[in-house]
Amino acid sequence: MTVAGRLAEIADLGRDAERGGYSRHLFDASDAPLRAWFGTSAAALGLQVDEDLDANLWAWWMPQPGAVRQNAIATGSHLDSVPGGGAFDGPLGVAGAFEAVAQLQGGGFAPARPIVVCAFAEEEGSRFGLPCLGTRLLTGAADAASALARVDAAGVTLAQAWRESGRDPAQVGPDPERLGRFAAFVELHVEQGRDLEDRGVPVSTASAIIPHGRWRLEITGEGNHAGTTTMDRRADPVVAFGGAVQAVREVAVSRMPASRGTIGKAQIIPGGTNVIASRVVAWMDLRASTDDDVREQHARTIERIRAAVQAEGCTLEVHEESFSARVDFDDALTARITAALEPEFGPVPAIPTGAGHDAGILSAVLPTAMIFVRNPTGVSHAPGEDARDEDCEAGARALAATLRMLAGPA
Amino acid sequence: MTVAGRLAEIADLGRDAERGGYSRHLFDASDAPLRAWFGTSAAALGLQVDEDLDANLWAWWMPQPGAVRQNAIATGSHLDSVPGGGAFDGPLGVAGAFEAVAQLQGGGFAPARPIVVCAFAEEEGSRFGLPCLGTRLLTGAADAASALARVDAAGVTLAQAWRESGRDPAQVGPDPERLGRFAAFVELHVEQGRDLEDRGVPVSTASAIIPHGRWRLEITGEGNHAGTTTMDRRADPVVAFGGAVQAVREVAVSRMPASRGTIGKAQIIPGGTNVIASRVVAWMDLRASTDDDVREQHARTIERIRAAVQAEGCTLEVHEESFSARVDFDDALTARITAALEPEFGPVPAIPTGAGHDAGILSAVLPTAMIFVRNPTGVSHAPGEDARDEDCEAGARALAATLRMLAGPA
Repeated sequence: MTVAGRLAEIADLGRDAERGGYSRHLFDASDAPLRAWFGTSAAALGLQVDEDLDANLWAWWMPQPGAVRQNAIATGSHLDSVPGGGAFDGPLGVAGAFEAVAQLQGGGFAPARPIVVCAFAEEEGSRFGLPCLGTRLLTGAADAASALARVDAAGVTLAQAWRESGRDPAQVGPDPERLGRFAAFVELHVEQGRDLEDRGVPVSTASAIIPHGRWRLEITGEGNHAGTTTMDRRADPVVAFGGAVQAVREVAVSRMPASRGTIGKAQIIPGGTNVIASRVVAWMDLRASTDDDVREQHARTIERIRAAVQAEGCTLEVHEESFSARVDFDDALTARITAALEPEFGPVPAIPTGAGHDAGILSAVLPTAMIFVRNPTGVSHAPGEDARDEDCEAGARALAATLRMLAGPA
Repeated sequence: MTVAGRLAEIADLGRDAERGGYSRHLFDASDAPLRAWFGTSAAALGLQVDEDLDANLWAWWMPQPGAVRQNAIATGSHLDSVPGGGAFDGPLGVAGAFEAVAQLQGGGFAPARPIVVCAFAEEEGSRFGLPCLGTRLLTGAADAASALARVDAAGVTLAQAWRESGRDPAQVGPDPERLGRFAAFVELHVEQGRDLEDRGVPVSTASAIIPHGRWRLEITGEGNHAGTTTMDRRADPVVAFGGAVQAVREVAVSRMPASRGTIGKAQIIPGGTNVIASRVVAWMDLRASTDDDVREQHARTIERIRAAVQAEGCTLEVHEESFSARVDFDDALTARITAALEPEFGPVPAIPTGAGHDAGILSAVLPTAMIFVRNPTGVSHAPGEDARDEDCEAGARALAATLRMLAGPA
């Protein structure tokens, strides 16, 4: 089989007819069929599947029957997407892991320790707002009780959704015993920029994940009639929001090239064409090279937003939804992977990424590394996200070489 | 009974728990109980109810059994609301009409011609985007086929919703025969500004409805990953939207006091926190003193929006959703109403309004006038919309005096 062939098996699941691309979210209609595909793919390779208490999937390739589940090498990614996302962010790392196992099995490789393919729950945080939900719960990086109290756009709590999916919310939480079974984690992922395309190389490793914060802005004004309220009697939170958008952009641009600032989601309340809104809720995403840089970018941006909000006679509340500190991947592990890849791929760069990953969460508890696959468009989190078939196969071969090195006899 | 008592009967229908106030839209869960209340209120006064083929309700008070339905005086308003709207915009005019009929009946008044209480469908246009839907269909001001093809936020067409409500979309359209039965229409309505509060008078008539246009703006950029896309590689439609909001405000302010410009509704697509949006759809509402003023305001605003959109590397499409020309109400009818009110109310001002009304649509085919009731907050289309109980009663008495004058013996 091929990586492209494996991705083709799930190509019809979770399509977003309205936005294009895919909308695959935790426990939505696509969730069970995607998990079933994971189970079928694992079974075809003789792997033993289990789901942990945080809704993450694990497929074990055991060295021999009755071997102990210890010192395992884990690899995988996630199957969920952002709303209207691409086909590769997440699924490439899962399909690529199955393909790497298939290649190792086809070549007669006998692992000296377990190799485990995994798929983590709600990596994008698109339904409940907390990215890397599954790995945060598993490692204890997120508190189970406060995560379960989160609500989705329809007002459903994570605890409710969890129960309705047939799982037990009371069991959610850290599982150090499971994590203790692993010696390392490697995540294969599509690149989400155009760095490898510019460099002309099909794969790389990752040096670091730049830090990242999400804040919810609540701008409150005075709802009124759009036709009868004169311009001098308004406190319009949409106008203040327009100022907030400009502030986010201007501060990020002033701190180029490392800083990024984005508002990609907002709700206007009540949202009538002939109604001056009473409230706008917007989500602000800021990233920079270091944790301190993000904090300073945040302070400067909020200062400007507050000025715009006050100028309109509105009020501002700012809630920090998440802060993901800078992650530096395991240097020794990355060096070993680089050495394993260079015979086939020549010089393999190590690049930083602006995107969050389960690998970033797991790096706090395990030696962790990433392998990126070239993306010719550089687009991600959108239908235009792309990876050439031959680069996907290169990624699977790179992962197979990595697993052979990590899980082979010492 | 009282107007307040009549409004209390529907106070629990269509409450919006999330936004506050009311969300009552065509054929939603509140629609049938509101229609049932209309029927019960009419029956209690001995009026004969029928619904026309455009989903508008009519309750006939006939001079005597077997009288011909001709030369009737119609009065009423609507029962739907904007999302998160107030309790008075619409229902006050229907409850006030029933109360006026009750007062006339209580005083032994014998009408010389039919008096008809009406409630028009989807005046706010909140579900299908076309304000005064019921009266536009009835008069032919809107084309039935294109109205039926409109879709709501869930993608349901008006034709589908119509059918699912048990009505026949094939029958929708103008009914000149019905309109020919009326000699005049008077709409009682809460004021949607603070003019009467500032003047210290409980009721007024309306001189005109200032003209009003709605445009849909579609700003298309390039969806991408919020973390990996550097600031210099973006075409972010949310940033362009921020510029559009500022443009709408600045042009309207530069043309004060008559011009108003509002964006109260917008959708960010796909709408992920970690996603640079690919598209923003926004609805722009512009109003000014004359039709030409609105057209000029529109041209200047779009010119600025286009500049902001192009500066961001995005593209703009502009669709006119509706244009409501200036309406001058019937001077002779208004003068007769003023004369009928002055014995009780003293000088009664005639004020222009920035809000659209079914009276504006009907004025094209019937002598039409309006009576406004003082609003102490000046707020409308929001939960803070208000009218004092005694002013609501004053409105009903003013309408009763008007109906006595119009429907009494010549």
